[in-house]
Amino acid sequence: MTVDLNSDLGEGFGGWSLGDDEALLSVVTSANVACGFHAGDPTIMRRTCETAAARGVAIGAQVSYRDLAGFGRRFIDVPPETLTDEIVYQIGALDAFARIAGARVSYVKPHGALYNAIVHHEAQAAAVVAAVRAYDPRLPVLGLPGSQWLRQAGQAGLTTVTECFADRAYTPKGTLVPRSEPGAVLHDPGEVAARCLRMARGEPITAIDGTPLPVQARSICVHGDSPGAVAMARRVRQVLTENGVELAPFIGKEA
Amino acid sequence: MTVDLNSDLGEGFGGWSLGDDEALLSVVTSANVACGFHAGDPTIMRRTCETAAARGVAIGAQVSYRDLAGFGRRFIDVPPETLTDEIVYQIGALDAFARIAGARVSYVKPHGALYNAIVHHEAQAAAVVAAVRAYDPRLPVLGLPGSQWLRQAGQAGLTTVTECFADRAYTPKGTLVPRSEPGAVLHDPGEVAARCLRMARGEPITAIDGTPLPVQARSICVHGDSPGAVAMARRVRQVLTENGVELAPFIGKEA
Amino acid sequence: MTVDLNSDLGEGFGGWSLGDDEALLSVVTSANVACGFHAGDPTIMRRTCETAAARGVAIGAQVSYRDLAGFGRRFIDVPPETLTDEIVYQIGALDAFARIAGARVSYVKPHGALYNAIVHHEAQAAAVVAAVRAYDPRLPVLGLPGSQWLRQAGQAGLTTVTECFADRAYTPKGTLVPRSEPGAVLHDPGEVAARCLRMARGEPITAIDGTPLPVQARSICVHGDSPGAVAMARRVRQVLTENGVELAPFIGKEA
Amino acid sequence: MTVDLNSDLGEGFGGWSLGDDEALLSVVTSANVACGFHAGDPTIMRRTCETAAARGVAIGAQVSYRDLAGFGRRFIDVPPETLTDEIVYQIGALDAFARIAGARVSYVKPHGALYNAIVHHEAQAAAVVAAVRAYDPRLPVLGLPGSQWLRQAGQAGLTTVTECFADRAYTPKGTLVPRSEPGAVLHDPGEVAARCLRMARGEPITAIDGTPLPVQARSICVHGDSPGAVAMARRVRQVLTENGVELAPFIGKEA
Repeated sequence: MTVDLNSDLGEGFGGWSLGDDEALLSVVTSANVACGFHAGDPTIMRRTCETAAARGVAIGAQVSYRDLAGFGRRFIDVPPETLTDEIVYQIGALDAFARIAGARVSYVKPHGALYNAIVHHEAQAAAVVAAVRAYDPRLPVLGLPGSQWLRQAGQAGLTTVTECFADRAYTPKGTLVPRSEPGAVLHDPGEVAARCLRMARGEPITAIDGTPLPVQARSICVHGDSPGAVAMARRVRQVLTENGVELAPFIGKEA
Repeated sequence: MTVDLNSDLGEGFGGWSLGDDEALLSVVTSANVACGFHAGDPTIMRRTCETAAARGVAIGAQVSYRDLAGFGRRFIDVPPETLTDEIVYQIGALDAFARIAGARVSYVKPHGALYNAIVHHEAQAAAVVAAVRAYDPRLPVLGLPGSQWLRQAGQAGLTTVTECFADRAYTPKGTLVPRSEPGAVLHDPGEVAARCLRMARGEPITAIDGTPLPVQARSICVHGDSPGAVAMARRVRQVLTENGVELAPFIGKEA
Repeated sequence: MTVDLNSDLGEGFGGWSLGDDEALLSVVTSANVACGFHAGDPTIMRRTCETAAARGVAIGAQVSYRDLAGFGRRFIDVPPETLTDEIVYQIGALDAFARIAGARVSYVKPHGALYNAIVHHEAQAAAVVAAVRAYDPRLPVLGLPGSQWLRQAGQAGLTTVTECFADRAYTPKGTLVPRSEPGAVLHDPGEVAARCLRMARGEPITAIDGTPLPVQARSICVHGDSPGAVAMARRVRQVLTENGVELAPFIGKEA
Repeated sequence: MTVDLNSDLGEGFGGWSLGDDEALLSVVTSANVACGFHAGDPTIMRRTCETAAARGVAIGAQVSYRDLAGFGRRFIDVPPETLTDEIVYQIGALDAFARIAGARVSYVKPHGALYNAIVHHEAQAAAVVAAVRAYDPRLPVLGLPGSQWLRQAGQAGLTTVTECFADRAYTPKGTLVPRSEPGAVLHDPGEVAARCLRMARGEPITAIDGTPLPVQARSICVHGDSPGAVAMARRVRQVLTENGVELAPFIGKEA
């Protein structure tokens, strides 16, 4: 029984920092590293890659719309060809630091509004898939089960990996409860860790209406930038390992 | 007798274009491609790499300070470590497009104020050298004879290539006449082409004070963004080839 | 019989220029000056304001999404409150240069994707209206007849001014023929000028299907950045004045 | 006996925050508000102006080089004319929010590397002075005693106000001990507060070598972004007021 823990990292910029990357890189097994378009600057990218590589944490390209002012959280109606080129640019830039650190970019996970858009937006999903294929068709992609993003990636021959969320409530249909609704985010570390254990074991979790819900995912996303984020991530890791779940990057294995 | 013609290319951004890249890519043998920090966006980078690769033009990373608003023409007192990381980022991003086009970034030439700064600025010169070494120590670097940039690059084991300028007047000491002085820029295509022929042959040219000046350079820089730039570059190419000078990228050969 | 000619101006950035502002400022009566978010930098803004003020051309704030890389041509799902603040910022910055030139920002016209979005997008239209009201409720706003933008602006007590387009084909319903369709843009200066004369006189023009179409507009938009733009604008001005139509800014008069 | 406390505020950007503005705006009497070039975005600017205005805190324009990636901490060799225009742009943008909040930009204080540069850099100092004069010659300017900035501002007829630093060590000559040297920054709130009281009373403080040093300043700068910043600022305010020193903005009074 093996599961991957992924988290968004390297999301400071210039004089601004965000989250405790150093601590999280001792907890997670895959680091979604910001590539400079919504966050991240070259120095942060280098340092994050160095630490990740030194600790055996897989480096993923957390690609985004070009939107520093909005932290990549606003949908932008970028023409697909432009989007493809912007994604290639970001992966290439991050890969330079990963290689220097003795590693490689080993997967791609879109960020924020782009992540949300390509659940449904066919043309933008295709654009991101095209970027990954062009850069390196062996790169796995990480995303939401049932999304256009993973569907098209799979059709294009890319390795797809699904993720679930440690601290988010699910609807009975298996979609995330929107953040605007009550109970959308779980705050109790013990509850979150217990739920992650069920996810890792392939046991059903409880949807927001109390019904059991099977959640299949090879990777669990833990958040890094909220208060208590590190403590919660550590608790998840502890409970998983204490119960015999191996934590390891998903790369190199099929979804 | 072989010489390289290099030119700055891909220097538009978003809605703005600059110069006639398409035409120049039929004239030059090495393209200094902007990497997005002073000019160039991902789509322009991809297109420039595609065309360059298709025509056998070598792709160089024209790295710069982060300064879109100033077109990289203002000195910025960037800490050396930051500068190193910024250069790595730019080379990596461009290399993604070069690889997709079936080529590689095959040399590095700093742009604008950075080019000028590292003629003398030891710490920044060392920072750019460190970036190239970290990214790929086999990458040749292009620059001004006698500059800190080439001196330190050579000491660090990089292949250094010197360039001269087709349309710039030289002082008797072999430095460029500053643009602010009269006669600094040559405008007559015939004169420029004849001078390039002498440079390629290793024959002395005439300095601004009329004295003969030996100018040794493996590559000649022709400008792409001034009025008449394409016509002048074509004339240079025509005169060189008609006189038996072979035009070829410098990459893969020693300086 | 009086009409206003407006055009987008000051749309260069740093090292890049766009259009012949100097020439157009001798033709139009209202200048939609870019404010730095899709184009325009402080120096361009100052110069454009100086020239406009010297020639009696009204200065309008051509406000945009924050999108230099996309020239403001991509819809961005900015939260309305953020958008309001971004519009205020742009108007305030431009007004500084207008005041220094002895004038004032005297109207507001959204640019590109924002212009298109707020034809229908109620929340973003409301956000731009809120910005104008907060900055100065006496500022007229310029836009498309029937748009949310003008409807909400009118309801909020702002003076609204409608514009029509010199070189764009209209559907029988009075909307613009999308640029993607054949015949959407008129290229013959004589035809364009004659059509502008009919618009200024309140006479119907011919829709793309040949039916007569009344087009009421206090201001006619002429484009500045296409080839032949200046020549066409001059022809429009010439034909209008030769036929007794007075050209004057709309500011200070009701729509 | 009256003194002003000023602090840098509004220095977050988009998704990133910096310092506890809300708390500091209850302590200081003058807010140096970032204008979007090194930090600050329109929403942050609006909120900071609203709170400052509501609490009677004077709003100053904390103008900077255009350098979000470097937080305005790197010298940029901007041509003076460009710099003047960039400063005007920033003041105008901030003034829009100040006016909407019922206040006005009431002084100008350069930030970071620009602040340091114009201690000596005559052309850039002149450029910033020109910007303030052009925007509003009644605006006081805040800066370092003996700087080119204040000297030229005074010669140009602007009101100049000197500041001293609550937590920085001084050399016997009255200049700041560089941050790179030991003891450059004072960390003990009690010591800092006592020193501020002496500054406010016009009594000499102790230079780093132990000699007494008279420090004349109408305004004391307290920092807002270091750990313990708010606590230290509160202590300074408390000690000053308990000892009969009135805290009030300097605006409207001569330096």
